Amino acid sequence: MNFRLFFSLLLIAASFNVSAETKSPEPSNNLDYPIGWQNWASIAVSHRTDNNTLRLIIGNNIAVQAARLGKTNPWPKGSIIGKVVWKEKRLENWQSAIVPKKLVHAEFMFKDAQKYSKTHGWGWARWIGLEQKPFNKGTEVCSSCHSAVKNRDWVFSDPAQLPKIQ
Amino acid sequence: MNFRLFFSLLLIAASFNVSAETKSPEPSNNLDYPIGWQNWASIAVSHRTDNNTLRLIIGNNIAVQAARLGKTNPWPKGSIIGKVVWKEKRLENWQSAIVPKKLVHAEFMFKDAQKYSKTHGWGWARWIGLEQKPFNKGTEVCSSCHSAVKNRDWVFSDPAQLPKIQ
Repeated sequence: MNFRLFFSLLLIAASFNVSAETKSPEPSNNLDYPIGWQNWASIAVSHRTDNNTLRLIIGNNIAVQAARLGKTNPWPKGSIIGKVVWKEKRLENWQSAIVPKKLVHAEFMFKDAQKYSKTHGWGWARWIGLEQKPFNKGTEVCSSCHSAVKNRDWVFSDPAQLPKIQ
Repeated sequence: MNFRLFFSLLLIAASFNVSAETKSPEPSNNLDYPIGWQNWASIAVSHRTDNNTLRLIIGNNIAVQAARLGKTNPWPKGSIIGKVVWKEKRLENWQSAIVPKKLVHAEFMFKDAQKYSKTHGWGWARWIGLEQKPFNKGTEVCSSCHSAVKNRDWVFSDPAQLPKIQ
């Protein structure tokens, strides 16, 4: 094999590897994957004892700022709220503590009263498991539960108390 | 009142107001307040059923990167791990969900094997309530519980599963 061919193949292999590591999942309910949510700040946490899951509620900058100011009814345009859901287990070294086991899914609500006027002012999306496989069975499965809080702009969570002092 | 005096008083009032909003709490156990932790990324969540509290485990950039890479025994020098603790309550609109009520405290572990060699390689600090009143009763109250996980570099939490895909 000559050097030119070797380096060409090396470049092709490298580009495949990079794309495999950085490729975003396909859209869910026609909504693009919110890249980088793993580093978003937190809004709340919860433990659902009816389906044995722990939840972390996070937000993009617009949502987090609204949460901190208590301006959440309605949430401002451009807010993205994420809910990261894990099955629960007992902590090995502290048996009365319930902690995350396997990742179930990450769900997101995208606020835009005009753009998503047909789905209550929000876009609704979900990516499943560590592979973040897109959910594409429509938004009704989301909004049917959330209709219980339609007077809270369709959001269950209250922002958790945080000190304003920095 | 002349204009000069008026503006002088205005400036003094403004500076008091700024300092009241940005002043950090006093040190806890001789450790400085980790400014801006409210916007740190998350490492895990937990629900302690023995004392009815929900917990959010966060980290500074060094700690979060270590958590994501699974390089946490030992945690790298400069890691700061935070645990934000709230009393629990039932969510009004979903009774089987346990959510945060009143903020109890925010606790932090500061990793530096040399600097904190006398306290197991960590500095231990706690700020109490929304006022973030510093805890100054020494580190023994922290490390006595954490000694159960001394073989895990004194840290209870495992980083929660997160997708590597972005």
